[in-house]
Amino acid sequence: MRELKGMPVAKAMLEKLEKEVNKLEEKGIVPKLAIVRVGEREDDLSYERGIYKRFAAAKALVETTVLSLEVTQEKLEKVIQGLNQDECVHGILVFRPLPEHLDEKRIADLVAPAKDVDCMTMANAAHVFAGDKLGYPPCTPQAVVEILDHYGIEVCGKKVTVVGRSMVVGRPLSMLLLQKHATVTICHTRTENLEEECRQADILITCAGAPKMITGVHVKQGQVVIDVGIHAQEDGLCGDVDYAAVSEQVEAITPVPGGVGSVTTTVLLKHVVESAVHK
Amino acid sequence: MRELKGMPVAKAMLEKLEKEVNKLEEKGIVPKLAIVRVGEREDDLSYERGIYKRFAAAKALVETTVLSLEVTQEKLEKVIQGLNQDECVHGILVFRPLPEHLDEKRIADLVAPAKDVDCMTMANAAHVFAGDKLGYPPCTPQAVVEILDHYGIEVCGKKVTVVGRSMVVGRPLSMLLLQKHATVTICHTRTENLEEECRQADILITCAGAPKMITGVHVKQGQVVIDVGIHAQEDGLCGDVDYAAVSEQVEAITPVPGGVGSVTTTVLLKHVVESAVHK
Repeated sequence: MRELKGMPVAKAMLEKLEKEVNKLEEKGIVPKLAIVRVGEREDDLSYERGIYKRFAAAKALVETTVLSLEVTQEKLEKVIQGLNQDECVHGILVFRPLPEHLDEKRIADLVAPAKDVDCMTMANAAHVFAGDKLGYPPCTPQAVVEILDHYGIEVCGKKVTVVGRSMVVGRPLSMLLLQKHATVTICHTRTENLEEECRQADILITCAGAPKMITGVHVKQGQVVIDVGIHAQEDGLCGDVDYAAVSEQVEAITPVPGGVGSVTTTVLLKHVVESAVHK
Repeated sequence: MRELKGMPVAKAMLEKLEKEVNKLEEKGIVPKLAIVRVGEREDDLSYERGIYKRFAAAKALVETTVLSLEVTQEKLEKVIQGLNQDECVHGILVFRPLPEHLDEKRIADLVAPAKDVDCMTMANAAHVFAGDKLGYPPCTPQAVVEILDHYGIEVCGKKVTVVGRSMVVGRPLSMLLLQKHATVTICHTRTENLEEECRQADILITCAGAPKMITGVHVKQGQVVIDVGIHAQEDGLCGDVDYAAVSEQVEAITPVPGGVGSVTTTVLLKHVVESAVHK
């Protein structure tokens, strides 16, 4: 069994990106991400720390606007509009979910598509749907693609089963894989025969949001398994896949932690650098 | 074998729509579609005749703006903008493909989303992708859904295979079916084992654009087959499915002609009426 670790993928991406950042530096441009965070949720803070660390390693900038949980829609919209207009900002990331009194969809769609480095806007979602490569896909699905590419796992013509249909991972990931000519099956909670659907795949990708729901009965020899899930359990972090049972059978599998999640912030950096290049 | 004819579906839809049109009439509103046609292509003219006939049956209006093949981008854009602003127009349909000197994407995206009754804009495509029901899906995929609904063919939890991945049919159709909780597999020209993928489906839907490419080896007993293709051959019209060979085996199948195509204009009418109601 081959363990598809995320760090070597991130490292290879970073090496390429450092060259791009150096070229930009010669032109006096420093790639910059603006984070908008409402409140102090631990998930957000942890992701934020990961972003700062990764961006610092590439000499790219991050600046966080922190707003209180009581922030008004009007105030938040003004913040986004300000960042849209700020020429030094190349990417905008608003941590979600937002508090319930805020219109999250409206906020997300307010981000300038050219700075929408995590596919928050409907405009970029449409580009991912159409496969026209004119908008940035969300970072997590793109991280899956980077892992497959890095480890030379061919998807063209292959049967790829995606478990999960969210707009954050499942749907955009399915479209990215379709664009790479995979035969894509989208499964979800209503799928009648999930075990068989999973077993028939050449590549099984789980973004179901349920800890260890994919067990030994869902897989077969020779498969590649990519686990997008990440869940805090009493005994530590785990994915959607029961790693101990599944890794015994399949050809290759991403660990959790240390798999997809460790590539996501590098994809974010890549998108911000690309945005700075195209400016 | 049950033949899933389109006309009974269209008729049932029309009966409901007539009531809506009558209610609108009491408010002094007549649903109106604006067609924009460049040139005199036979395909367009034939579709246009079908639209006029169907709309007349429901006392809804159609008005066609005919432009020469030499029309400029500027002129065509002005036509669209005029129709966007015209309060009597509830739906806009631009026949495509447009001549090569025109920027078709730009034209399509210029249509006001509220009047975009055939999902020409990226804004409506994004709504179909997200499954939020805020935009009109394209008419042909919606016609497939209407046929399945009319004949009581359950898709929730079922394995549906879609052959074709265009933005006109395959992709939006896959999303509409996903929204109805089908387990959707998207196949295409690069799919390695198309025969098996098709045979494994509970419902097989073809929008591949290749005459009679789906034969007896692609199907099994008990399946429902929906044929979206329509091709002019020497001996008449045919679909993507070899009807003679396939209809012998499956449980139910749409004919070509007389299947999906005969529901499409009624879906267009439905969208225009809905647009007039929501105005």
